[in-house]
Amino acid sequence: MMRTRPLKVALLGCGVVGSEVARIMTTHADDLAARIGAPVELAGVAVRRPDRVREGIDPALVTTDATALVKRGDIDVVVEVIGGIEPARTLIITAFEHGASVVSANKALLAQDGAALHAAAEEQDKDLYYEAAVAGAIPLIRPLRESLAGDKVNRVLGIVNGTTNFILDKMDSTGAGYQEALDEATALGYAEADPTADVEGFDAAAKAAILAGIAFHTRVRLDDVYREGMTEVTAADFASAKEMGCTIKLLAICERAADGESVTARVHPAMIPLTHPLASVRGAYNAVFVESDASGQLMFYGPGAGGAPTASAVLGDLVAVCRNRLSGTTGPGESAYAALRVSPMGEVVTRYHISLDVADKPGVLAQVATVFAEHGVSIDTVRQQGKDGEASLVVVTHRASDAALNGTVEALRKLDTVRGVASIMRVEGE
Amino acid sequence: MMRTRPLKVALLGCGVVGSEVARIMTTHADDLAARIGAPVELAGVAVRRPDRVREGIDPALVTTDATALVKRGDIDVVVEVIGGIEPARTLIITAFEHGASVVSANKALLAQDGAALHAAAEEQDKDLYYEAAVAGAIPLIRPLRESLAGDKVNRVLGIVNGTTNFILDKMDSTGAGYQEALDEATALGYAEADPTADVEGFDAAAKAAILAGIAFHTRVRLDDVYREGMTEVTAADFASAKEMGCTIKLLAICERAADGESVTARVHPAMIPLTHPLASVRGAYNAVFVESDASGQLMFYGPGAGGAPTASAVLGDLVAVCRNRLSGTTGPGESAYAALRVSPMGEVVTRYHISLDVADKPGVLAQVATVFAEHGVSIDTVRQQGKDGEASLVVVTHRASDAALNGTVEALRKLDTVRGVASIMRVEGE
Repeated sequence: MMRTRPLKVALLGCGVVGSEVARIMTTHADDLAARIGAPVELAGVAVRRPDRVREGIDPALVTTDATALVKRGDIDVVVEVIGGIEPARTLIITAFEHGASVVSANKALLAQDGAALHAAAEEQDKDLYYEAAVAGAIPLIRPLRESLAGDKVNRVLGIVNGTTNFILDKMDSTGAGYQEALDEATALGYAEADPTADVEGFDAAAKAAILAGIAFHTRVRLDDVYREGMTEVTAADFASAKEMGCTIKLLAICERAADGESVTARVHPAMIPLTHPLASVRGAYNAVFVESDASGQLMFYGPGAGGAPTASAVLGDLVAVCRNRLSGTTGPGESAYAALRVSPMGEVVTRYHISLDVADKPGVLAQVATVFAEHGVSIDTVRQQGKDGEASLVVVTHRASDAALNGTVEALRKLDTVRGVASIMRVEGE
Repeated sequence: MMRTRPLKVALLGCGVVGSEVARIMTTHADDLAARIGAPVELAGVAVRRPDRVREGIDPALVTTDATALVKRGDIDVVVEVIGGIEPARTLIITAFEHGASVVSANKALLAQDGAALHAAAEEQDKDLYYEAAVAGAIPLIRPLRESLAGDKVNRVLGIVNGTTNFILDKMDSTGAGYQEALDEATALGYAEADPTADVEGFDAAAKAAILAGIAFHTRVRLDDVYREGMTEVTAADFASAKEMGCTIKLLAICERAADGESVTARVHPAMIPLTHPLASVRGAYNAVFVESDASGQLMFYGPGAGGAPTASAVLGDLVAVCRNRLSGTTGPGESAYAALRVSPMGEVVTRYHISLDVADKPGVLAQVATVFAEHGVSIDTVRQQGKDGEASLVVVTHRASDAALNGTVEALRKLDTVRGVASIMRVEGE
């Protein structure tokens, strides 16, 4: 049964993602109409540069006045693909106030102001969908929010940034250093001119906050996410990882504590075993591992960015939101009933790989081992290598808290026989 | 806002999956209530053997009269985990007629009678959800039906049967023959006493029919699915696969033809490159690759069977169906508007690996090559091996239709110099 009055969509932003959304809305109009139960019509496109030629978009639809567009009152769904905090935030809230539901791909905004946006949507009884905000085309938010709604998620462990995965994969496969691999990523268009948001982990941290909130039905703010970038990862770290049968990935990790009463969210580089499915995620691909009580281990894999893949996620949400409007209902909103404590990084428990430069003389290992023991950090393996009067000591620990590890490292630095701490890296995925 | 009147759930079947559903409904009652917006209550459990002790289930709820249970009129959702065609089919239709929505894990029934069941659901304006029918806990139906609703799926390629993957993985890693690997699978509980449904591909074919229908928005009947089991796969096939940098998997493949106007669905063993993500799916795990216009390649991976994982999928559906009932709506029903032709196997185009036993004399290769050429099948590589007057010829073709390949093989068998066709295997995933 097809309704003939079309649903009206306002598109905010017409860059890489927005232009793909507009293109697919046109080329796949019949399919979208059949799947929704009514045609969808592009009613307006807000852009910053109206003079730019946009193939396939009626110039009469283009406006620079995004606010007027979302205030029109006849818009069913606002698709926000501008990115950034403002004006996106105000435009979305204004859209709700004027009767529209919203589909957004804005990870930074959702991570920072998700609670307020959800509250605004709920107040107006409207939908806020944002599958495209995390891991591009990979269905992740819907599976976590709906498919696993009858399960208890204990951990989300993923590669959610394609730029850094490209760089780390390149370092791993070619032995290149960080700068060389970054330069190649930039040349190939995988890294932006200013790669800070990617390489310092800000992008991944926003996604971790969103995923943790949905997975654990609790509120996780961006500030709650511990963040460490991957600019300090060296070719030597990759060599060490290889010796352990590992590789290095920038991971977003959201975990429920063993007692079930608190959660943590963090982003940092980590060694993972080559046998772990995440180890073989190549290039700019993303993949997310989800561990739950009943379902066990699931993995979701695909392109984590790019115009068309992100548009695919936006359009999946658009179909759902349009269907909801036709049936006069809304989908699942924010689910934060669990109200769990978000623990600081010091309480995170994991394993560590520590490389020390030490004096090459008897008793050093005993000294070092004593420091670990005093801080309650149990050692799994130690490897000593001597070279020209200097020696290196590679220690891999059993599971210990981040606080205990930090205390250990601080004490190690004070030992006369320890010349320096060459690297500390977490070991995950076991 | 929590409603206090509980939603009532009738459970049909209390075996491996049903008992897990009941257990999680009890242990996770608070979480389910919070996620649904109302408590859910187990209102009855229909079983065949009422005297069996069922831990955690109130004996007063247990009945052998499933029909009376679904006819009660106060049941909100019927969860059908009996399996098989009857009585499941009649019970589900009766449930719709008496006001209930249905969550089912029944792949055989959905593959055979999906259209009729969907029609019955739609007539009564009720939900029919069945995420658990395909690939256990792996979210697959919801992503295909909802996340990719704005995209155009061109191919679904997957390992959807854990038993056969366990056997093939064992053959690959140990060099064991089929029977030996099957015996181990049986001893470990991965294969049933009668493994026919798994090893002959019936189980995978049912899943392929369901997946193809959802992916392509068209009706694909079980009879439309070409099916070939994996009992003929030999250790020699694995050796040949290794030489090509491949392994062998039993694949379910649903494809849209290049012209977009027809689709195919098939299940058969195939060689896939070791570099393909599906090649590294080990043991009884399942994984499904989905290729779409906009999203590119996605993969979904996880446990494809087992009580708890299947229960996780059932409960995810239960939460969705309960939410729909509370908001007085229904989720997406059958989407078969595309009404595409399902092409016969002869039209399927792929590559082939053919091993021939031939006479070891000059001119044989020329003869064989001529036969391929006459049938329009282009050869990619040929490898000749002589041994004691006999020789073997291994031919790998470029892409050709199944009909052309069959014609080729028929003609090859008639050559005096071809002593036998040792094996024919498709090559996929490139």
